[in-house]
Amino acid sequence: MNNLKKYALNEIPHYKVHGRTVPGANPLPLFFNGSAVELNVSGAELWADLEVSWQNLEMWVTVEINGELMSRQMLMPGTCSLCLFRGMTPNTVKNVRLTRELQAMTEDEDCCLIVHGFQTDGDFHPVAKGKYTLEFVGDSITSGEGTYGAIGEADWIPMYMSYSRDYAKMTAEALGADAFIISKGGWGVLSGWDNNPDSNIPSRYEQLCGLCCGKRNESLGAFKPYDFSLRKIDAVIVNLGTNDASAFQQPAWHDPATGRTFKQRLNPDGTFQADDLKRFQDAVISFLKTLRRHNPQAHIIWCYGMLGYDLTTAINDAISRYTKENGDHNLIFLQLPNTTAQTVGSNDHPGVLSHRRAAQVLIEYLQDYFSGN
Amino acid sequence: MNNLKKYALNEIPHYKVHGRTVPGANPLPLFFNGSAVELNVSGAELWADLEVSWQNLEMWVTVEINGELMSRQMLMPGTCSLCLFRGMTPNTVKNVRLTRELQAMTEDEDCCLIVHGFQTDGDFHPVAKGKYTLEFVGDSITSGEGTYGAIGEADWIPMYMSYSRDYAKMTAEALGADAFIISKGGWGVLSGWDNNPDSNIPSRYEQLCGLCCGKRNESLGAFKPYDFSLRKIDAVIVNLGTNDASAFQQPAWHDPATGRTFKQRLNPDGTFQADDLKRFQDAVISFLKTLRRHNPQAHIIWCYGMLGYDLTTAINDAISRYTKENGDHNLIFLQLPNTTAQTVGSNDHPGVLSHRRAAQVLIEYLQDYFSGN
Amino acid sequence: MNNLKKYALNEIPHYKVHGRTVPGANPLPLFFNGSAVELNVSGAELWADLEVSWQNLEMWVTVEINGELMSRQMLMPGTCSLCLFRGMTPNTVKNVRLTRELQAMTEDEDCCLIVHGFQTDGDFHPVAKGKYTLEFVGDSITSGEGTYGAIGEADWIPMYMSYSRDYAKMTAEALGADAFIISKGGWGVLSGWDNNPDSNIPSRYEQLCGLCCGKRNESLGAFKPYDFSLRKIDAVIVNLGTNDASAFQQPAWHDPATGRTFKQRLNPDGTFQADDLKRFQDAVISFLKTLRRHNPQAHIIWCYGMLGYDLTTAINDAISRYTKENGDHNLIFLQLPNTTAQTVGSNDHPGVLSHRRAAQVLIEYLQDYFSGN
Amino acid sequence: MNNLKKYALNEIPHYKVHGRTVPGANPLPLFFNGSAVELNVSGAELWADLEVSWQNLEMWVTVEINGELMSRQMLMPGTCSLCLFRGMTPNTVKNVRLTRELQAMTEDEDCCLIVHGFQTDGDFHPVAKGKYTLEFVGDSITSGEGTYGAIGEADWIPMYMSYSRDYAKMTAEALGADAFIISKGGWGVLSGWDNNPDSNIPSRYEQLCGLCCGKRNESLGAFKPYDFSLRKIDAVIVNLGTNDASAFQQPAWHDPATGRTFKQRLNPDGTFQADDLKRFQDAVISFLKTLRRHNPQAHIIWCYGMLGYDLTTAINDAISRYTKENGDHNLIFLQLPNTTAQTVGSNDHPGVLSHRRAAQVLIEYLQDYFSGN
Repeated sequence: MNNLKKYALNEIPHYKVHGRTVPGANPLPLFFNGSAVELNVSGAELWADLEVSWQNLEMWVTVEINGELMSRQMLMPGTCSLCLFRGMTPNTVKNVRLTRELQAMTEDEDCCLIVHGFQTDGDFHPVAKGKYTLEFVGDSITSGEGTYGAIGEADWIPMYMSYSRDYAKMTAEALGADAFIISKGGWGVLSGWDNNPDSNIPSRYEQLCGLCCGKRNESLGAFKPYDFSLRKIDAVIVNLGTNDASAFQQPAWHDPATGRTFKQRLNPDGTFQADDLKRFQDAVISFLKTLRRHNPQAHIIWCYGMLGYDLTTAINDAISRYTKENGDHNLIFLQLPNTTAQTVGSNDHPGVLSHRRAAQVLIEYLQDYFSGN
Repeated sequence: MNNLKKYALNEIPHYKVHGRTVPGANPLPLFFNGSAVELNVSGAELWADLEVSWQNLEMWVTVEINGELMSRQMLMPGTCSLCLFRGMTPNTVKNVRLTRELQAMTEDEDCCLIVHGFQTDGDFHPVAKGKYTLEFVGDSITSGEGTYGAIGEADWIPMYMSYSRDYAKMTAEALGADAFIISKGGWGVLSGWDNNPDSNIPSRYEQLCGLCCGKRNESLGAFKPYDFSLRKIDAVIVNLGTNDASAFQQPAWHDPATGRTFKQRLNPDGTFQADDLKRFQDAVISFLKTLRRHNPQAHIIWCYGMLGYDLTTAINDAISRYTKENGDHNLIFLQLPNTTAQTVGSNDHPGVLSHRRAAQVLIEYLQDYFSGN
Repeated sequence: MNNLKKYALNEIPHYKVHGRTVPGANPLPLFFNGSAVELNVSGAELWADLEVSWQNLEMWVTVEINGELMSRQMLMPGTCSLCLFRGMTPNTVKNVRLTRELQAMTEDEDCCLIVHGFQTDGDFHPVAKGKYTLEFVGDSITSGEGTYGAIGEADWIPMYMSYSRDYAKMTAEALGADAFIISKGGWGVLSGWDNNPDSNIPSRYEQLCGLCCGKRNESLGAFKPYDFSLRKIDAVIVNLGTNDASAFQQPAWHDPATGRTFKQRLNPDGTFQADDLKRFQDAVISFLKTLRRHNPQAHIIWCYGMLGYDLTTAINDAISRYTKENGDHNLIFLQLPNTTAQTVGSNDHPGVLSHRRAAQVLIEYLQDYFSGN
Repeated sequence: MNNLKKYALNEIPHYKVHGRTVPGANPLPLFFNGSAVELNVSGAELWADLEVSWQNLEMWVTVEINGELMSRQMLMPGTCSLCLFRGMTPNTVKNVRLTRELQAMTEDEDCCLIVHGFQTDGDFHPVAKGKYTLEFVGDSITSGEGTYGAIGEADWIPMYMSYSRDYAKMTAEALGADAFIISKGGWGVLSGWDNNPDSNIPSRYEQLCGLCCGKRNESLGAFKPYDFSLRKIDAVIVNLGTNDASAFQQPAWHDPATGRTFKQRLNPDGTFQADDLKRFQDAVISFLKTLRRHNPQAHIIWCYGMLGYDLTTAINDAISRYTKENGDHNLIFLQLPNTTAQTVGSNDHPGVLSHRRAAQVLIEYLQDYFSGN
């Protein structure tokens, strides 16, 4: 390890950043699960210089070499040099990807992962752009909750969340696409699973990363408006509605500080209260307008179903209304297979088999869509 | 074969009829694919006495013994005695099912299959009712078109249609359910694939079997109103819309005799013309009312997708409107996986792998539904 | 059907015969399961003119169109014209194969299937030779016993035997090979499962078809020496030993007529008696010599294991001795996966899933072998 | 993390050690891939106190919680506290296993992994013994080489070796068995892949861990005779012969220091030279005697085939000779499916799919074997 050379990120001639971030940031924060730095590098050895912080929700990362998962591990707070590979044939070029497994966290104001640079005895080579660019917008499903951990586990911990076994990764890989992920467990279109009206993804979509918190993240630029001109998305895959469906079944949310309260209501016969269903649909329509404004050319796929089909018709109805009112036909509803006892993972969430089935539906649809365009 | 005894159907103490038919008919016409006679019979040998007629579209049947397919064959016009099994241990009871593979046919006025009776050296034993009763209402997909035959075949012939590899059979078997099938290739909710407005299933749903033709079928009672009180359906699975979507892409239908013409139109930009989409949706709503009237307790599942997702939102929109106008929430939309190059069969129709995937979605949904009721 | 033209087999310019038979025979007997006539034919319609005879064990056939199974059915004794397809586009050429499902039978002296000719409104086109030529030599496994019928069935009837779900067919198809089948349920290398020393395949291997009986079969040439120069086998797959293993567990065979008796014995501790194991091995060696004499260029694969691994080492020991004594290294032992509760079929025999697993081992081995030669 | 309590291993009332080691050792060396410490522990948090050393071949470990893989990572030399989980519900008991991924190494004299103890805020609970006890004896296949890493990789590095995707793990888990692993890449029964006659597993089998080197390992007791009375093995699975087959194809091994040389030779026609084949077989027989001496009750399964079938008959011949000479029938040969282009992993070694297929054969065989005993 003597002849390793240390590079700050901005000294590296070629590297590729996955996920939304501040363009040209050095050091580079990785805000979302799936956010990553990808390198093509020669040399026998490669290390990443990282800065990790968190109070209660620990950071997890994965390392892939030439597209194959090599390691998955927890990172302790502090700075560290993490060995990504060693002992390899120096003159071959390896494709390496260091990826954040953990979703953005509003529950830990210190939670962040920052890439300062790399150390290697090799050289850096260009990294190709993906064939397509996809954006996945979702909740705990898209945050991979349940893709690790035994069936029956009930702890809400970072260890059970992932990008490495996420349908978004499977879909992007099968298509040779780059993926942007924006997702947060428990959040919905109108409200969170617990009727918290602030836990809605649309209100944060236009920020770089509105799904975290804290001064450190703020200083990294997380809450600034996102510059959508930075990337041209071919398809936006929205996988939301699951927590909105839960809200109807949960007690009212109440904020003792302000006295504010919120509740999506059921009728006495167990059906959705019409007004509340309508405000969910209005939120869908409003979000579709936001998505279209920032992604004028993107095909929008609204996915739903991995944890129940209850809002299928309501979502479609909203899509239909949006289409009529806006003359926008460049979107579709796609039902993803519900999770079963055979495909469930930890925390009663979709397991890796459920993610694979969902990815298959998306892959086939997108292959078909892209081949026709 | 000397000691075989010949029984007319009405001399047989125990037998079970699958599919819509005239109650107590002797001899018994089998009108639809999936229509069948099921026996529990001892003896070394069993023969069926059949009457077969057709002009140009030949009849096909299958024989199952103890739930396993033994034979599938073409039947020539005339009367015949068909050996269903022989050489078996006399004192064990075999479950035997003789099933029509071929859908009802409006294209051959002679096409019918009539069971006159059976010959055996054994005795007849009671046949149990299924755990649930399902009705499948569909088009060529539900008629199993494409489930036999090589990929690339393009002949529209009975040989390529089936019940034996149909998602309806797979679904019913997995649930231990009895299945009624009403399906006809090329037909839709509003019009046929070719814009023929008479090729709509709703107009025939209330007849015993309005999907065939000819004096012989008429004399068998095919066109009489069906007595829906004969069976109580637990779930109606409608798989329609595929031909309605085709109609938008096809030239206008024109009847030279009457000068009548019909066309579902596209806008110049390739989207569905709003008025025409609405009349499709009106037809969906109208059909839902018909289904509900005759199956007041049934859960209605509107399936769609095995040959394209184009009308997904339109169907859901119609379901939503139907629900609002009628206060009926006992129905759901289920998207079935589109057919791919890997799952296609003959005639560009879903192959057996596509049927299996579709059945899996239905099986999982229905298991979930029935377990909660 | 008016313009069908009737052709005796010898009037047909192009047809291909599968399986051992008398060269140029007209009419043509099909002796073994897998024996078949294959045609490439245009026209809307094709019928086969057949002669069928049997007393107690009924004949079964399959029809394949363009490589896909269309029908499987029992044939009654007598002559018949069997419609193989109808209603097809006249000017396309269809590949059609009419195949005997049922193994050769020593238990029914009338049992035979003879092809007299075909009727069609189309023309006959050349049928290509397979890429390789394989010979499968076996017992009930190779006769497909258990590939049809429900788990738990115990009747020894033709209905449960097949070529259509046989590992030999799967293997040949995957390799694009022509297959010769010589197999008979219950038979072994040294003796049958019941210790009958006459039920050994080697004693009949050099006859055209020594595994049937009766004057009719004799007159068809079944018992004449087979002219091995007629075909050049690339690989002989022997799947024998299973019944030899059974013989050790079964009571002695005794022929009351002659007083002749035979028994493969176990030691008191349940292991194989050394002398009896040796005479089994001698029979293996002797058979290998026979196989080599008639197939000097063929790669010999001795398969074993689908119904137990008991004789694995004994067979290998014999192969090793044969190799040493004869300097012949062009052979290999291949263990096929044992049948499990998940893969069993009827009659406690390998089901279609077991055949598929076995075929997979053979396919991979042969692909590897042929790619290296 | 304030209330964590630090325990030396010998202060922990309940823990289970997997793999051969010094009984009661504190601290505890983990010598082989698959060697592990397993705990049942309550508490919110668990850390392992480890000592790691290596010069050039880095250590890898995995952590499993309740039977599911959570992390896989490289460990740097030195002492460290590794967090195994945190943030979990304190009062539930978690099953935790910290496992060495990396095989024993003769190529790095510093290479070792030592468990000093654990830190937790919970309590320790008893860990059950497995239903069966298995010993796997093998080469690079059993060391999991190729189970990680992309197809086409050619670096011989620890990252590509594993226990976590090894057929031995899959087999043990499916049977609920405890597994002992003794394996070393490149080694054989008679010689290594390169004809090195010292690279033979039998010469090291009787040492605790003869497959590593260096003073540190020596001081840990690695080279002492293993006390076989410590465990009673139900089945020994030997997966050797692959490197012995390679030796025939490789140039002679030559030790410049001593002038010693060794070569397994081919005949001019490419077949194995008889004398050399015999000395391989003698080594097999000799090893079988060793295995039997130390495992008198164990069922011995000699597996072979995952990287070619070349020595199948030779191994069986040796088994047969061993059986005859020693009257020992409690052993069997099992052929494992060869690796194909579809199942290969990195370094031209079996990938995870190949391991799964091999495990399936073993699982089915052992389930059958154990159910009959």
